[in-house]
Amino acid sequence: MNPSERMEAPALIGLDWGTSSLRAYAVDSGGRVLASRRSEHGIMHLPEAPAGSGPNASTQNAARFESALQTLCGDWLQAHPQAALLACGMVGSAQGWREAAYHPTPCAIDQLAQALTPVVRPGGHILHIVPGLIRQGEIPNVMRGEETQIAGVLQGLEATGGDVSSLLIGLPGTHSKWAWVDGGRVTRFETFMTGEVFAVLRHHTILGRTMGDGPPSDASAFERAIRLARPRAGAMGLLADIFSTRTLALTGQLRAEDQPEHLSGLLIGHEVAALLPHLSTPKNRLVLCGETDLCQRYATALALHDHPVSAIQSGVVAAGLWRIAQAAALVSAVPQITCI
Amino acid sequence: MNPSERMEAPALIGLDWGTSSLRAYAVDSGGRVLASRRSEHGIMHLPEAPAGSGPNASTQNAARFESALQTLCGDWLQAHPQAALLACGMVGSAQGWREAAYHPTPCAIDQLAQALTPVVRPGGHILHIVPGLIRQGEIPNVMRGEETQIAGVLQGLEATGGDVSSLLIGLPGTHSKWAWVDGGRVTRFETFMTGEVFAVLRHHTILGRTMGDGPPSDASAFERAIRLARPRAGAMGLLADIFSTRTLALTGQLRAEDQPEHLSGLLIGHEVAALLPHLSTPKNRLVLCGETDLCQRYATALALHDHPVSAIQSGVVAAGLWRIAQAAALVSAVPQITCI
Repeated sequence: MNPSERMEAPALIGLDWGTSSLRAYAVDSGGRVLASRRSEHGIMHLPEAPAGSGPNASTQNAARFESALQTLCGDWLQAHPQAALLACGMVGSAQGWREAAYHPTPCAIDQLAQALTPVVRPGGHILHIVPGLIRQGEIPNVMRGEETQIAGVLQGLEATGGDVSSLLIGLPGTHSKWAWVDGGRVTRFETFMTGEVFAVLRHHTILGRTMGDGPPSDASAFERAIRLARPRAGAMGLLADIFSTRTLALTGQLRAEDQPEHLSGLLIGHEVAALLPHLSTPKNRLVLCGETDLCQRYATALALHDHPVSAIQSGVVAAGLWRIAQAAALVSAVPQITCI
Repeated sequence: MNPSERMEAPALIGLDWGTSSLRAYAVDSGGRVLASRRSEHGIMHLPEAPAGSGPNASTQNAARFESALQTLCGDWLQAHPQAALLACGMVGSAQGWREAAYHPTPCAIDQLAQALTPVVRPGGHILHIVPGLIRQGEIPNVMRGEETQIAGVLQGLEATGGDVSSLLIGLPGTHSKWAWVDGGRVTRFETFMTGEVFAVLRHHTILGRTMGDGPPSDASAFERAIRLARPRAGAMGLLADIFSTRTLALTGQLRAEDQPEHLSGLLIGHEVAALLPHLSTPKNRLVLCGETDLCQRYATALALHDHPVSAIQSGVVAAGLWRIAQAAALVSAVPQITCI
């Protein structure tokens, strides 16, 4: 351990292990985050297997994950061998360290604690992986990583005495997830590829050619596009609406620096418009969780449709891992929970 | 001229000059295509300006276009200096040889003949450029090149005695255009970025990672996806629907080679679904024009919604250029028109 980093003994080392990055949290027995670290060793960017890892593909794969883990927090693991180790995210996918099969919904989020996938690490220490969620049906839906964020949102709301009886939790991002959570049970969820579609339209289609990178000159461009995406008679849908980014540019009505705002407003507007029929009855409490600026865009779009957001949360994964670790009795439950 | 290519004297040399390619047609005084050629010298891939073109940017630009034209059909131009020269497509855009301002709609398609933009070429010979169309409004819409295809469709239908009183012409492609044409007048049109969106989703998002290139194993995958995209209660829209390509793959319900079919069906299905309210009343005659396989996909989608397509046309640009050249009196009108 770095001598300058003197840390109390953590009860949990939590890992948020996604496609492009790995984050580690040292959490004490009261649920407080003592320290956190981040590396670029997402599951698609792992280090090479150390020499001597053996010729077996599965062993090699495990060695690469172990190497990433040791690089980021080998000192924590060595100094605190009693700490539980719990991971969520793509580390549990088919391309991960070990596949943690999707857990069917509806289900109580705390029930995931009974469905952890154990991985025995060198020395016999166990890493537990949180499963993703699946909604079966004609068209299935899946999430992996967001289930732990949902646990974190519940943890945060309960710690501050918030009403969690009926929630609609929006998790904007590359793929936005929306989860209906009643009394701690995920009853339904949806996925929108909004963030990824925005990125490819901007970087790989004709719409990006005239776009500028500078700060928007017209603060209302985003909101105007949200309004354009509202359900209306004669609407031609998203595939038609996005072309307005080009035609407004061609006719001098939308500056280069405002075109990304316009496109963002159209896409988020279409996502929110699709959710509208599900927002009014029953009246869910709306909570957003994710990167603050992005959540603010969704809050603006929802407010324009008269659906105010109750709360915006971010950085909830450690709290979610802590909640699941408690429910799994990997750490001792203590009566007083601190909001993280 | 290549001695092996003995051609009657053309009345018109027509150019279909797009972003990525240039096509030339030699057309006789009866409207028959005598010969056609193609090069890669689209407006974004022009040859360098010949030495001695001068330092002026505008002169250099003109020299590059002239060079592309000479490379493809200098022999035709030299042998037949009396032939009219008419071009359509991106050659008339702001990035083209000369900007041919968009013509406002509604307008009769033959009226475009009165709005050609002349470019005086070396030696005084004139190239005429067909303008694109614009639909003004809160959200403008534009087309460039497709107006000439519409002229070609009208030309073909009239030559075979078809009813052209009320048409809805679909032009599938990178950007699909749909034009409502009543008595030869374009009264309205729409644009869908369907083809380009399909390409970027396939090549630049997570959806493409599991896709195969082979022939589809399940002939019904496309039609099933069309049905999924139908307007229905609880629909979450395109941004949500496309994620099914991944979840059906993850759950073993959609093979790698069928995933492109599924995605294509979803996108075309959404485009056609958006048009449905405009298809029923008044009853337009539905005509598709474009690449045959792609048109067939749209015809399948429309048939699943009980809207049979009357005709599929392709390769109509030469006929459209011929029609506009006649209306502009660049060539003599002859009483008997041959369907091209």
